[in-house]
Amino acid sequence: MLTNWNPAHMPEKEELKTRLSDARNQLYDLQMKIKEHKVPVLALFEGWGTAGKGSTIGKVIRNIDPRFFKVVTMSEPTAEEQRYPFLYRYFKHIPEQGKFTFLDSGWMEQICRERLEEKNDEKEYGSRIESIRRFERQLTDNGYLVLKFFMHIDQEEQKKREERLLEHKDTRWRVSEFDRWENAHYKKCVKVFSQYMSDTNASTSPWYIIDASERKWAELQVLETMISNIQVALQNQAHSVPILQNVFPLEQIPRLSEIELKDKELEEAEYKTELKKLQSELGELHNRLYRKRIPVIITYEGWDAAGKGGNIKRITEALDPRGYEVHPIASPEPHEKARHYLWRFWTRLPKNGHIAIFDRTWYGRVMVERLEGFCSENDWRRAYNEINEFEKELKEWGAVIIKFWVQIDKDTQLERFEERQNTPEKQWKITEEDWRNREKWDDYEVAVDEMLQKTNTSFAPWHVLESVDKKYARIKALKIVIEEIQKALGE
Amino acid sequence: MLTNWNPAHMPEKEELKTRLSDARNQLYDLQMKIKEHKVPVLALFEGWGTAGKGSTIGKVIRNIDPRFFKVVTMSEPTAEEQRYPFLYRYFKHIPEQGKFTFLDSGWMEQICRERLEEKNDEKEYGSRIESIRRFERQLTDNGYLVLKFFMHIDQEEQKKREERLLEHKDTRWRVSEFDRWENAHYKKCVKVFSQYMSDTNASTSPWYIIDASERKWAELQVLETMISNIQVALQNQAHSVPILQNVFPLEQIPRLSEIELKDKELEEAEYKTELKKLQSELGELHNRLYRKRIPVIITYEGWDAAGKGGNIKRITEALDPRGYEVHPIASPEPHEKARHYLWRFWTRLPKNGHIAIFDRTWYGRVMVERLEGFCSENDWRRAYNEINEFEKELKEWGAVIIKFWVQIDKDTQLERFEERQNTPEKQWKITEEDWRNREKWDDYEVAVDEMLQKTNTSFAPWHVLESVDKKYARIKALKIVIEEIQKALGE
Repeated sequence: MLTNWNPAHMPEKEELKTRLSDARNQLYDLQMKIKEHKVPVLALFEGWGTAGKGSTIGKVIRNIDPRFFKVVTMSEPTAEEQRYPFLYRYFKHIPEQGKFTFLDSGWMEQICRERLEEKNDEKEYGSRIESIRRFERQLTDNGYLVLKFFMHIDQEEQKKREERLLEHKDTRWRVSEFDRWENAHYKKCVKVFSQYMSDTNASTSPWYIIDASERKWAELQVLETMISNIQVALQNQAHSVPILQNVFPLEQIPRLSEIELKDKELEEAEYKTELKKLQSELGELHNRLYRKRIPVIITYEGWDAAGKGGNIKRITEALDPRGYEVHPIASPEPHEKARHYLWRFWTRLPKNGHIAIFDRTWYGRVMVERLEGFCSENDWRRAYNEINEFEKELKEWGAVIIKFWVQIDKDTQLERFEERQNTPEKQWKITEEDWRNREKWDDYEVAVDEMLQKTNTSFAPWHVLESVDKKYARIKALKIVIEEIQKALGE
Repeated sequence: MLTNWNPAHMPEKEELKTRLSDARNQLYDLQMKIKEHKVPVLALFEGWGTAGKGSTIGKVIRNIDPRFFKVVTMSEPTAEEQRYPFLYRYFKHIPEQGKFTFLDSGWMEQICRERLEEKNDEKEYGSRIESIRRFERQLTDNGYLVLKFFMHIDQEEQKKREERLLEHKDTRWRVSEFDRWENAHYKKCVKVFSQYMSDTNASTSPWYIIDASERKWAELQVLETMISNIQVALQNQAHSVPILQNVFPLEQIPRLSEIELKDKELEEAEYKTELKKLQSELGELHNRLYRKRIPVIITYEGWDAAGKGGNIKRITEALDPRGYEVHPIASPEPHEKARHYLWRFWTRLPKNGHIAIFDRTWYGRVMVERLEGFCSENDWRRAYNEINEFEKELKEWGAVIIKFWVQIDKDTQLERFEERQNTPEKQWKITEEDWRNREKWDDYEVAVDEMLQKTNTSFAPWHVLESVDKKYARIKALKIVIEEIQKALGE
């Protein structure tokens, strides 16, 4: 894109001044509208070293109340960050509804640098591009305004700026080694940057190339583009988006009504022996996982009172507490609800070598959120694909993903509810909401069946735990976890 | 995309039947909504030979009233079609608001075939992809629902089908030579098709790959995808889209107020001599143009009573009537208003070797339509780029584009208006509307200035004709036309 791009003509000084002052005032007014209409704005500043990414951000934010924005400066991934999926550190910083995040260089810089330093080949690059397209699409599909600026200066201008900065002790640090390399290999960089921009130029989050040869002019271009895009975003509040085709391999899975629950039981004695044996085996594996830096994600969904808690306990009992975490997922907090619904899961991912266990999960989107109307129909219909994409991302990162559906029948639930109600020390476990949900059993069953069909991918399949006999379910879960980890360890 | 695509599981016979019947009924109901909400639907069927594109379309349309759809079967471009820009024959067939067009293979087949037959190189392919992306984006940006289906069968299945058809005299014609070639070079085709689909997969008009191994199942997938997308489209009626950056080279051009009108005049005698000389020169050039098959597009915009008509006349007097056409552009007819605003210009393009003269043009979008509120602000703001893209497309096709702005001052207009009013045989030339427009002179001036700034590309620049003295303007126009044609002829 850079090669056939033509800068707009810079206006005369007087006009520039008037337009700048207009634009600043407009942005000031629009920030209130952004807040009122709850639009999250992610503004990405990429571009050449010394093109003025940081200083332009500095000028733009002067027009925004400090409560409404965050500036995030990205450098090369730290050792800590490298233990997470590549998009983790970006996803972490997406803004809340009604707020701005300014990223001082983001995923473009990272990918292009890897490419320039020949750290990724054609295939890896292609897979990164896929990830980024999905990421950006998921954001815009979910109501984010994503603004992508490329701050552009020519080779000569960059050279001049770098030399000027290098002259003085106080400014020398501003020119990185990579900046100098970039200038020396300007043409090669143009090629890689252009390719990247053309690969990620979507009509819903297009690239804007900013002529950054003059600071005030650069600021004006950025402001005017932001204003135009904010105005458009404000007009599109109840906007729906096409439901994309699932492109991932789905395995067949029975409907809930076809799952045989009878005779799935264990004697107490056999249970105890098995439990002990399997737990010790799992403990062993946990160490090896840690050494090999493999991340494991275990998720639990199932009916109320199906026995998720006790099941999870039998897993964690076997694990070193320094290497795992259990995340009980309740309704989202306000700061979570204000972001992409996957944000609270992205930010709870385990480091590699660690195990994260989710007691209820992102599948809430297509169960409770669907049935209670917490999101629109377009939202939950889109979510199957978004979730498959999310799990695919985790799989490509190298994670072991084990998804459990804990199944009981309606009568068993009633028995357990009544037992809880009648046992004083268990009464806290049963609420009015549980009874209300029970009334919607049939609706839930439809939603769960659809969910299982549409998200049973070969890389992250569902495992059903028949849990009328909780002992049976626990042993089955342990066996599956062990088996999946062994596979990942190549055993 | 084909290589990593996985078909969904075909449902059992009973389920298939129920879902098919549901889907057919739903589509039947939705066609009324499409009509009511004035959504134009363009459904593109691409895919392997013998995959059943035509027969699937045949089944889908059974659920739609014949007044609401058209089926267009595309074959290789005819000699006649080859005399137009590559997108012409597709643009021609875009549906009206509230109606469906089904294309039995479209631009994908054409491009991929050129690629497979090595008729285009990497660069030409890239430029085609750019054109197609713009075309599809312009459609969806302007409210079109664009559905892209790829009917997929595997190599074995295709072979079986082809052999079956070839066995019988009556069906042999159904298998083209290209179909057989495709089967013999299946892998190569997969690569080219996949690349194309991935190059043109936008979130606003995504690809849907249809497992076409079984006819009823294929029909169901198409129907369900159509329904889902129609439902989404119906929710997005007042949807705005981002204003893209202009990527084309713009030349500076003075504001109207800076144009010097004084002393731009000619003596009658000089005018006559010049006129004769230039017209005969232009006549000559017209023949050469025709031989070299160069298309020429001359457009006129300007103030009411600026002298467009008389100016055009001095051009056409020089031309062979078999080789040019003048298109006076008034407000659009209902069937024109019901389509993309550029449709009535696409369909009026000259064949190569011909000259088309437009008396008022597509620039109405950013003048009268803007000022009279005939389109939304988002629409006209987007139009500058859409128009530049349109003219770029024409330029790449090989057209000479000459755009005139005929300029007079406000007093001159008043004089001419009054003269028309007071001269019985000229009274038809002056209407109430002219007077109303005159009152908005200042608003128009703002709009025209913005238009000139934003569409004065180096490949299709504006030429100002100072027309207080009409003779001066006519001679200047002739000279420019001659000069531009000479350039195109390489003289």
